[in-house]
Amino acid sequence: MKKVTIYDTTLRDGAQAEELNLATQDKIRIAHKLDELGIHYIEAGWPGSNPTDKKFFDKIKGHTFENAKIAAFGSTHFSKTTAENDPNLAALLAAETSVLTIFGKCWDLHATTALGISLERNLELISNSVSYLNKRVDEIIFDAEHFFDGFRNNPDYAIKAIKAAHDAGASRLVLCDTNGGTLTSEITKAVKAVQKALPDAQLGIHAHNDSELAVANSLEAIRMGATQVQGTINGYGERCGNANLCSVIPNLELKMGIETIGKDNLTRLLTISHFVSETANLRPFMRQPFVGTSAFAHKGGIHVSAILKDSRTYEHIDPQLVGNEQRVLLSDQAGKSNIIFKAKELGYNLGKEDPTVNTLLKELKQKESMGYEYSVADASFELMLLKALGKPLDYFNFQNFFVVDAKREEDPEPFTEATVIINVKGQIEHTAATGMGPVNALDRALRKGLERFYPQLGEVRLLDFKVRVLSGAVRDTGGTASFVRVLIETGDKHERWTTMGVSHNIIEASWQAVVDAINYKLFKDDIRREQKPK
Amino acid sequence: MKKVTIYDTTLRDGAQAEELNLATQDKIRIAHKLDELGIHYIEAGWPGSNPTDKKFFDKIKGHTFENAKIAAFGSTHFSKTTAENDPNLAALLAAETSVLTIFGKCWDLHATTALGISLERNLELISNSVSYLNKRVDEIIFDAEHFFDGFRNNPDYAIKAIKAAHDAGASRLVLCDTNGGTLTSEITKAVKAVQKALPDAQLGIHAHNDSELAVANSLEAIRMGATQVQGTINGYGERCGNANLCSVIPNLELKMGIETIGKDNLTRLLTISHFVSETANLRPFMRQPFVGTSAFAHKGGIHVSAILKDSRTYEHIDPQLVGNEQRVLLSDQAGKSNIIFKAKELGYNLGKEDPTVNTLLKELKQKESMGYEYSVADASFELMLLKALGKPLDYFNFQNFFVVDAKREEDPEPFTEATVIINVKGQIEHTAATGMGPVNALDRALRKGLERFYPQLGEVRLLDFKVRVLSGAVRDTGGTASFVRVLIETGDKHERWTTMGVSHNIIEASWQAVVDAINYKLFKDDIRREQKPK
Repeated sequence: MKKVTIYDTTLRDGAQAEELNLATQDKIRIAHKLDELGIHYIEAGWPGSNPTDKKFFDKIKGHTFENAKIAAFGSTHFSKTTAENDPNLAALLAAETSVLTIFGKCWDLHATTALGISLERNLELISNSVSYLNKRVDEIIFDAEHFFDGFRNNPDYAIKAIKAAHDAGASRLVLCDTNGGTLTSEITKAVKAVQKALPDAQLGIHAHNDSELAVANSLEAIRMGATQVQGTINGYGERCGNANLCSVIPNLELKMGIETIGKDNLTRLLTISHFVSETANLRPFMRQPFVGTSAFAHKGGIHVSAILKDSRTYEHIDPQLVGNEQRVLLSDQAGKSNIIFKAKELGYNLGKEDPTVNTLLKELKQKESMGYEYSVADASFELMLLKALGKPLDYFNFQNFFVVDAKREEDPEPFTEATVIINVKGQIEHTAATGMGPVNALDRALRKGLERFYPQLGEVRLLDFKVRVLSGAVRDTGGTASFVRVLIETGDKHERWTTMGVSHNIIEASWQAVVDAINYKLFKDDIRREQKPK
Repeated sequence: MKKVTIYDTTLRDGAQAEELNLATQDKIRIAHKLDELGIHYIEAGWPGSNPTDKKFFDKIKGHTFENAKIAAFGSTHFSKTTAENDPNLAALLAAETSVLTIFGKCWDLHATTALGISLERNLELISNSVSYLNKRVDEIIFDAEHFFDGFRNNPDYAIKAIKAAHDAGASRLVLCDTNGGTLTSEITKAVKAVQKALPDAQLGIHAHNDSELAVANSLEAIRMGATQVQGTINGYGERCGNANLCSVIPNLELKMGIETIGKDNLTRLLTISHFVSETANLRPFMRQPFVGTSAFAHKGGIHVSAILKDSRTYEHIDPQLVGNEQRVLLSDQAGKSNIIFKAKELGYNLGKEDPTVNTLLKELKQKESMGYEYSVADASFELMLLKALGKPLDYFNFQNFFVVDAKREEDPEPFTEATVIINVKGQIEHTAATGMGPVNALDRALRKGLERFYPQLGEVRLLDFKVRVLSGAVRDTGGTASFVRVLIETGDKHERWTTMGVSHNIIEASWQAVVDAINYKLFKDDIRREQKPK
């Protein structure tokens, strides 16, 4: 079986993404996760370019890795220095890694315009740098910057540049599409020319996604014979990002029959993808191939009834191979089979002829015509299901709320206060609270009334709050009288759940979602308590 | 120059995306924008599958389009019916579009497993359906569902299926990678085989992005000779989405030398991409190629100094070709020129040394750090500009508001009332109003106080109201205490304008936007009055 090494640059090129900022501790945690995933090389920073990366290499020295080699990254030496006295090369060696990756200019325009030197001098920089470093560490990888742009403009010179690195002892030549503008058919042509000129060179590919072709271009270079692919987790990187390893790896392993991290490690892909986005505090991209929340989510009724017969009908791979799972979304296109499937997922077995299914379908359609959207609020769906099964929850009963927002000329923000009356186990609780806004005040007043009875509510955190104005869809009168749908994501130490409310009145919609969130928490705690061995 | 037609399915396949829900009015607005972009076909829905799509086709009948043909989408007839009495085909014809697109099974597994019919009967369904519809409308496009999976499994049968459609009169055979699992090299092989079997057929490509290859696969089919590409704006669609037209179109136009919508229309690409995401109230994807906010954003110091010498060094195309712009991160150089540019657009000439520019820049930076986003609210920006120019508006002064939302057990919705105290031309107005929600009540009470002085407010309509919860970006405490940004679109017989407010408190944020909207209207009326010949 053909083998390809994976070279991850999330910590270096990935960190060039506009939104990404990683602290040293974050980088170390991510490096260990990449190692667990079976990544072969981790490019961890550019010690010559900034003090944070230098600090990282100092810290990482005490850590051991099972699968991965740590690489430091830098440029060829400056034209005004020699390899021996160049501060950038010195910083690379000071990182004390067994692998060093250096990039050099392969595009004639760059040598003359960006560096302002002669084409011949640029070849010397490459040759001197590689040769100097090669004597001092185990492995030198040469990143051929702008290789494909250079090849388009001046193919002979682009090949001369990588030949300089090859002759000076680079273990591998990585062809970079630095600007991400190269078409897949150009990759084929350029790789072929390199193989002809340097038949004994080991090649790699480093693609950017500016034309939305980074994954395709990486796969094409591998198909042509390259044996290393560089990329980042979730495709993070400067501008439009780098080749997304979360797509490259499963395509190689599952479709092209090429060994990379191995099939066992592949099942950790989703976890690693989430770990990196969580650590970077970035919202995951739902439609991300293989590991996205939506990647195996089915909405249309026809698709749902077909996957229940044979999941291959609308899924290109078994989602479990990458640690993901099939999801059935509930929507106005849903039928009976969606409901049965969804209920089963939540642990309720409903037969096709069960009258609950019809009751639920009717309720669902009616609610969705009002703007409810159960596909995004599993917890609210489960509460509706319990009601349809004749098991409504009875933790508390609503009696009254009253919210005031008052603002005077001299106030920067309104004063907000909410009062709530609820009946908890036969006892009337009347509470009041202020808040940052009307919903926050209501939420606080309600919890105040409940926490005496259910102290575990103290561990509940509201994680996200989304408001969507429903225009046109429903009985809409437009403008500030529009229907709104509120989604609330809540969490405790066990799990996260999403609830929903819909109304003309944003306060009422939010109230519904808050009430569902609390009921769901109390219900799940009861279930957990029952399941516990006594 | 080779020409390729663009077939947009944002309104049909795009609407299968997990987060996407478009109301009929939204769909009509998007259809007109697609027409402006020069799209050739707009697939607008599946009238046989749901009542919302049926409603859309009824509404769209009165609209005219300059460039685009509207297509209705549906399946071949049921195996238990004939073409003549099939409800799905009848619904397609009832849509009264000049183009119909029908999909049929090309994967033997699907015919036998999903439909449960013989392979021979499936060919009859295709042939009968195409031939029946072909006599009744101008053009029938055949979507060859799962063509590439079918070709992999049983190449002869896959080709038989499309031949059935071709022989029955389909104008075009669109090869669909329905599951999105096909590698680019497989596209090459399959298209070649189709061209050999059906040399006179016009081909199209419909790719999904489950392997992150939808754009590459679309370009490859076109390179091989297909002359139509199907996709969606921003790549919206079921699971991982469809081929992203915002990447496919510029790649074809700018890199492959193929004419699609034309280079002039191409400059509108960014606007359309934003229009669709805003209409769907979806957060734009920053790293999106070509049209993303980060697509031409430069962070690394080396890149920045190089692009200042020659932008080709780190940009694959000139961003203006797709309506985007270069951004240099961590630099306020761009700020000043942006403000001068924007002010000029609104009719105010500011010199580079004008102190107003500095005042505005400072105010803008401070507001944007709080979550204001003036790029989407021109009217609020103009009011800020007037203030900086020392010409604040004085139509009324705020003194006080008081909003109550009260709900009892027996009420379906809360009772809402607002009172407002304002000073209009020295006179104190104290008014009260009820409303469908707190913002609606406030809006009504404010107008009640003003209409006596400014009767033209009677012609003002609030057209749209959007709420975005700002997570992380600003001084955020999360959950129901998050910062919110409210955008309000308002219109009269002359124009439409957008205003904005930001606060922890959604009522305060909405109030800011409502006040700006009314001030803007009164100011513009004065300008119009001054300009009128007396």
